Amino acid sequence: MAKNVTAVLTIAGTDSSGGAGIQADLKTFAALGCYGTSATTALTAQNTTGVQAIHGVPPNFVVEQIKSVLDDIDIRGIKTGMLFDSSNTHAVASTLKEHFASKGRVPLVCDPVCVSTSGHVLLHPDAISTMIDELFPLAQLITPNKAEAEVLLKARSLSSEITTFQGMLAAAQSLLTLGPQAVLLKGGHIAVSLADIGSVTTSAGTSVEVNRDFLFGENTEILQLAKHSVGDDLIVDVLCHQTQHGVNNITLYPRPRLQSNSTHGTGCTLSAALACALGRGTALVEATAQATTFTHLGIETAAPIGQGFGPLNHLHSVSRLVLQPRTPGNPFPLTRKLIQGTSRVWKEYVQHDFVVQLGKGTLERSSFLHFIKQDYHYLKYYARAYALLASKSHDFAPILAAVEIVLHVSRESAMHTSFCAQWGITKDELDTTPESPATTAYGAFLIDTGLQGDTTKLVMALAACLLGYGEVGLWLKKEAEKPNSWVKWEGNPYLKWMQDYSGEDYQNAVRVGLETIESRAAADPPSPARYAEWRAVWENCVRLEKGFWDMAMNKL
Amino acid sequence: MAKNVTAVLTIAGTDSSGGAGIQADLKTFAALGCYGTSATTALTAQNTTGVQAIHGVPPNFVVEQIKSVLDDIDIRGIKTGMLFDSSNTHAVASTLKEHFASKGRVPLVCDPVCVSTSGHVLLHPDAISTMIDELFPLAQLITPNKAEAEVLLKARSLSSEITTFQGMLAAAQSLLTLGPQAVLLKGGHIAVSLADIGSVTTSAGTSVEVNRDFLFGENTEILQLAKHSVGDDLIVDVLCHQTQHGVNNITLYPRPRLQSNSTHGTGCTLSAALACALGRGTALVEATAQATTFTHLGIETAAPIGQGFGPLNHLHSVSRLVLQPRTPGNPFPLTRKLIQGTSRVWKEYVQHDFVVQLGKGTLERSSFLHFIKQDYHYLKYYARAYALLASKSHDFAPILAAVEIVLHVSRESAMHTSFCAQWGITKDELDTTPESPATTAYGAFLIDTGLQGDTTKLVMALAACLLGYGEVGLWLKKEAEKPNSWVKWEGNPYLKWMQDYSGEDYQNAVRVGLETIESRAAADPPSPARYAEWRAVWENCVRLEKGFWDMAMNKL
Repeated sequence: MAKNVTAVLTIAGTDSSGGAGIQADLKTFAALGCYGTSATTALTAQNTTGVQAIHGVPPNFVVEQIKSVLDDIDIRGIKTGMLFDSSNTHAVASTLKEHFASKGRVPLVCDPVCVSTSGHVLLHPDAISTMIDELFPLAQLITPNKAEAEVLLKARSLSSEITTFQGMLAAAQSLLTLGPQAVLLKGGHIAVSLADIGSVTTSAGTSVEVNRDFLFGENTEILQLAKHSVGDDLIVDVLCHQTQHGVNNITLYPRPRLQSNSTHGTGCTLSAALACALGRGTALVEATAQATTFTHLGIETAAPIGQGFGPLNHLHSVSRLVLQPRTPGNPFPLTRKLIQGTSRVWKEYVQHDFVVQLGKGTLERSSFLHFIKQDYHYLKYYARAYALLASKSHDFAPILAAVEIVLHVSRESAMHTSFCAQWGITKDELDTTPESPATTAYGAFLIDTGLQGDTTKLVMALAACLLGYGEVGLWLKKEAEKPNSWVKWEGNPYLKWMQDYSGEDYQNAVRVGLETIESRAAADPPSPARYAEWRAVWENCVRLEKGFWDMAMNKL
Repeated sequence: MAKNVTAVLTIAGTDSSGGAGIQADLKTFAALGCYGTSATTALTAQNTTGVQAIHGVPPNFVVEQIKSVLDDIDIRGIKTGMLFDSSNTHAVASTLKEHFASKGRVPLVCDPVCVSTSGHVLLHPDAISTMIDELFPLAQLITPNKAEAEVLLKARSLSSEITTFQGMLAAAQSLLTLGPQAVLLKGGHIAVSLADIGSVTTSAGTSVEVNRDFLFGENTEILQLAKHSVGDDLIVDVLCHQTQHGVNNITLYPRPRLQSNSTHGTGCTLSAALACALGRGTALVEATAQATTFTHLGIETAAPIGQGFGPLNHLHSVSRLVLQPRTPGNPFPLTRKLIQGTSRVWKEYVQHDFVVQLGKGTLERSSFLHFIKQDYHYLKYYARAYALLASKSHDFAPILAAVEIVLHVSRESAMHTSFCAQWGITKDELDTTPESPATTAYGAFLIDTGLQGDTTKLVMALAACLLGYGEVGLWLKKEAEKPNSWVKWEGNPYLKWMQDYSGEDYQNAVRVGLETIESRAAADPPSPARYAEWRAVWENCVRLEKGFWDMAMNKL
């Protein structure tokens, strides 16, 4: 189940249209498997075409929200976004400062949101100083874009205009002097070439590394075959932090610029993803790689939503599971789904007229004998299929488990022989009875499935026989226990057969079989395609089982 | 990519602690693959122990938010939660009424949130009438719990106390007269037994059905083996809607009561899940089944968060993908991950000293001849492995594709023979040269992998040879094209070998091979366990390739 979930907090404004702000943060947290909480600093009426209205939240209520969260939940990472005004910024900073002082610091990512893409002021100008003075010293990382970096630098009368890639590197280092432990200066507004990256010059006391996740690594000429090579219009995010020895450590994150209108909330998404990664304890350089990749893929895989600049696809790296989780209330989700999905043919199998007449004791002796003789042939296929399963297995435990079943089937066949003797059928007659097409179809299908797929597919093929006979045995026994039952138990010529399949021995095997397929499915949850394969194999076997009893009834 | 995403809207209050309200709604929307938008009616400072403070949002700003969303985004389903007061309730109802009148109705689920579990008033009492009069007529469904149902019925002077299961059925029908198209009366506060469900009596003009998702279906005796049978402490949600013929159609949704403290936001989650299902066009009865199951599993799989009644696990039915999505910027995510994950040994293979000396033209003739003779043996395994792949394939296209490669390898072996003749090696010598252990190891591993796993696993095993020789060919050619290259091209005794593997023919095969493994991985995204298997096979083959060249260099 969901253990050790990392809880994170966003302190930001809302975006009614769901692409930015707290909404983008919560979607990012969910997509990355973190537990999301939030404190709202301002509400916006907003969509993909712009911001229509803003409603600021009173600072004392911002504090109330943050305290409600921090007092109750073990928050491991925090991000701030739109803080709206100076009093809210002060309220946030002082609340976090107090919390860090009493409970210890957690990674804080400050996205210094100032102005929306559409030009709406999201942070009152007088709040800039408050943010720098009070919030930055608490921050592990700030994540300004070009415009925000320029505003911040200008507020401290530092050289602020950023027009070149080299200028970005200087600005990032300059921003570091404003107090945060690290700066991620986002590069969306500066065009960079591979050559620019190669020719980066660094002053003394600076080291530069390049993250190559979006470039081609060494020894990957073949991956460049398809002409998807990285061009010269790169976006480069610049991460800068100071080492213990006072060296400015710069990491560059180049990636291809995407031609896309799905960019609403990019900055929110990035800082939210950073809060998740840092909150999980991922080191800064790797956390930045994960967060920039997550954001890039969100843009690249987005479907158009809205009339303007649409939201990212936050869900690009999650998929819906086909099977429900295995829980105490539903310990057999795969088997249930298989049976529910094939309920008509499953019923035709487990409540076959052969079974009903056998239960009543009215089944023609010749039908039963025909069945028993063919079942003897079938058991040979069944044993071979488990031997094949053993040969395909990788570890002693599954090898031995499969071979145990071969031995069990072999003993069962010996009992078959003596059982048949009681009905006047000799071993010789068993061996020389020609195999019916229904027997060959079922048996050969097991072997073919085993040769063709992996071990799990073979296990699925073997399940219909094991589980179905268990179902028949339990059903007949349960019916027999009812008053005035249609099932004749004592004195039924087929009593031993009913006893065998409803008995503890066989039902134990059913339990083991259920556990085997359910634990395989839980350990390696099937994709839709893989589940469809399993289901097809299961359904085919259920049909073949029904066909087997048709054969017996009709003595085919 | 993310196509045809269903967009939904929640109009509700926030929960700073993330378990209820808009936060629960957005998490539910994300988990169910819908695009979430929101309009905030009130902010709460809240956690798992209770509600600490509430800040109402002015009605005109609630309207602004709803309009920003509806004017821009094609919303297919809407839910309302906490509406706070009468003026906000009126504002929401009139805005939706106007929108439905101009753009057509979409399913509206009204969760009539009144009072928090901890006793905090979330809807001013004077808003009840507004909700009934103005919002209910717009709603496809309302989802009250027992307390809310009683408040609603009392407000209209209807018999309101609900103490029995039979009373729930009456109340649900009574609520229907308040104006919504359907009522889902939640049963969390009434204990029901299976016998109660069996003995439901209905008056004339009413029909009752039972959803059996949480009960055991027909013919599933074996699933009840594990003593997880449904007990007598059931929760039953009651869905009631009127058919065209004026019949009250009741559906019961029984499920086992869970002993859990993770119930914060249950109602929000349920109504959000209903908005998703109805927004996708799912019929009401099935939508309710999906939403109640989603919510039940959210409680059952929740990890403890917070000190009080913790949130549900909204992410129980999604999983993180191992591979990045296949995008224009990263068309080979599987191959990249395989190579990056084995970069050291991959480099030892594709830049092996054998390759370097071959490029320089300094490779000992005897090493090359040893290699060529062993390669001849290896190609037999390689052809057999593709024949095995054909025999395991299910359709003519993959059968023929595999057989084409067998034919290609066979022709290659003929060229091998004539090529060897130039070096003075007869066909007879080729055939009688003993197989080196490195050749047997690699060849037999291919066959074993093919016999043991599914076709995709075999394709992974075959990839290291195909892609590695392609990489070697391209690398040598690229190096040779550099000025003053260390690679000797013209006059190199091994020129033909270099030309073959860098040539268009072979590189086309590499492209086809890349497309094959990438499209298989994209169509059937691997679970972590399955990816680990692929990676192990890949890495083993890369090592065996390196071993093959070690053998040639050392003439083993």
